[in-house]
Amino acid sequence: MTADIVIALDAMGGDNAPNMVVDGAALVVKKRSGIRFLIFGDEARLQPLVDAKPELQGMVELRHTVDVVRASDKPSQALRQGRNSSMRLAINAVAAGEAAGVVSAGNTGALMAMSKFVLKTLPGIDRPAICSVLPTIEGRSVMLDLGANIVCDSDNLVQFAIMGSAFARTVMEVPRPRVALLNVGAEELKGNDAVRTAAGVLRDAELPMAFHGFVEGDDIAKGTVDVVVTDGFSGNVALKAVEGTSKLFSAFLRTAFTSSLLARMGYFLALPAMKKLRERIDPRLYNGGVFLGLNGICVKSHGGTDAVGFANATQLVADLVADNLIGKINADMAHLVTIDMPQTRAVAS
Amino acid sequence: MTADIVIALDAMGGDNAPNMVVDGAALVVKKRSGIRFLIFGDEARLQPLVDAKPELQGMVELRHTVDVVRASDKPSQALRQGRNSSMRLAINAVAAGEAAGVVSAGNTGALMAMSKFVLKTLPGIDRPAICSVLPTIEGRSVMLDLGANIVCDSDNLVQFAIMGSAFARTVMEVPRPRVALLNVGAEELKGNDAVRTAAGVLRDAELPMAFHGFVEGDDIAKGTVDVVVTDGFSGNVALKAVEGTSKLFSAFLRTAFTSSLLARMGYFLALPAMKKLRERIDPRLYNGGVFLGLNGICVKSHGGTDAVGFANATQLVADLVADNLIGKINADMAHLVTIDMPQTRAVAS
Repeated sequence: MTADIVIALDAMGGDNAPNMVVDGAALVVKKRSGIRFLIFGDEARLQPLVDAKPELQGMVELRHTVDVVRASDKPSQALRQGRNSSMRLAINAVAAGEAAGVVSAGNTGALMAMSKFVLKTLPGIDRPAICSVLPTIEGRSVMLDLGANIVCDSDNLVQFAIMGSAFARTVMEVPRPRVALLNVGAEELKGNDAVRTAAGVLRDAELPMAFHGFVEGDDIAKGTVDVVVTDGFSGNVALKAVEGTSKLFSAFLRTAFTSSLLARMGYFLALPAMKKLRERIDPRLYNGGVFLGLNGICVKSHGGTDAVGFANATQLVADLVADNLIGKINADMAHLVTIDMPQTRAVAS
Repeated sequence: MTADIVIALDAMGGDNAPNMVVDGAALVVKKRSGIRFLIFGDEARLQPLVDAKPELQGMVELRHTVDVVRASDKPSQALRQGRNSSMRLAINAVAAGEAAGVVSAGNTGALMAMSKFVLKTLPGIDRPAICSVLPTIEGRSVMLDLGANIVCDSDNLVQFAIMGSAFARTVMEVPRPRVALLNVGAEELKGNDAVRTAAGVLRDAELPMAFHGFVEGDDIAKGTVDVVVTDGFSGNVALKAVEGTSKLFSAFLRTAFTSSLLARMGYFLALPAMKKLRERIDPRLYNGGVFLGLNGICVKSHGGTDAVGFANATQLVADLVADNLIGKINADMAHLVTIDMPQTRAVAS
């Protein structure tokens, strides 16, 4: 019982909270052993939900909270006024050592501000980044930053590369991930000062990664590398462009398959294959944006997800804890500090 | 005959040049009247190709050139050493008034450098931008800059918005296009200084557009607005992310449809519908990146396109000339100059 991983859950964030949080926890417990939960939220609503799941008996401790961080709250406002919110108290549990990590489907900006304030950044990390797994033609890859830092200098990008590489080694079990910086061309002279300077540092540093240089936007889906590193502006734009295009394709496909009787019959025959396709790109499979660079595991679940998606984000926490992600980042950062770091900080401008 | 639009074609750029250039010109002539061509390239290769197309007789004037801009040439190198190249002489024809516009499928950076040097920018435009039409769920939209300017200040973004709006009025026949700035959130406080300052200017300026504020990456494919404005780094990343995701979907779909005998039969039945879907997202339909902001129409065709794609890029030139795109940009810029412009130039950093 002592070796169990305890995960703190913010039960009040997300469109389908608190039901999908409790249902998600139940799905995790059914799938794997050794995980228990500290659930923060409105006890009057949570207790009946937990009681209805026999598999959760003895696996959950409820912590009653009254305040809630709303989707419309600004990060600074949440930080000041949300000290007793379910989100904040769940993060506090990680800082206090009661939980090994935290999951919330609530307000992203507030979660980032609070977790940065409470958990602090790791030694040598200036700013945390949001990192997620994406589907590719080859399999999967990870990309960061997905929106935490609008403007990044070369040091930030180097740190993101190290954190993303540690994440890929942990989650995708690639011993020496291929890492690249997102750019507008593969040539050395392309891009802004920040990416060019970061490329120079990563090329020379002897880190447990295969530095690939630059990739372009279409390399994300191609799976050209395991880790795509970029600033939070481009990363967020790219991630959402991918999401938008996926929806465009789904809409066009739907139109095509309902355009005639023959097409409808064709769809019916191809149904099992189409189901497999849908499963392959199911966003719930890729749910969970990890805040890398914090001294604690904090995962942001998509706000609109269901129990399956929330369970996946929760299992991601368990994986990152079990495989010692933070230890890996610390080791690589310590190694980077011992080598020559250029003193110039090229800002992305 | 005097009212014909003459278009200069660089016959030596692109993977399938010069054949697809001549074949593309022939397709244009078959489709619409009133267009003639000045074709620049190796006469020994071009003459037989032109002779083989009866529809081109009397519609084409060949201009023999020896030098060629290579795909690997740097822009500065092409500018210095390519003075007698097919690309440069085709652009010169526009400056000399011999042609109303130019199309090239060659080296993008060289084409931009040369056309900027030869044609110059329009009054009040600091930097030209690359603009293209994209498919959306709703229909079509335009996006700029797609990669000409890695770093943009707020004035650049305002000018891009004006140019993109004039382009949408011309090509998509929307009298009052909805225009938005690409950002990482819809709220006013999001993003870098450049997008926030540009938003302020566009909100107050009385221009022939409906300024929509900010959109995110997924709004591109949704078709939330008619014109998406961003810097060349994010624009290029977004465009290529869209392309990459389209290819990912096509690959997954192919796998799904060949995964079983039933799926294959289903595909066979749905074939006409799938063909319609493919046509809807056919990249040749959207071929042609327009260099907006130059005192002349210059269109970059995709390097890997075929005759159909090249013909579409060429027809785009004819449309932009016929509908007086440059006059529209000039009128809107003159209007902007008469209103209050803030003196602060917020750089995207």
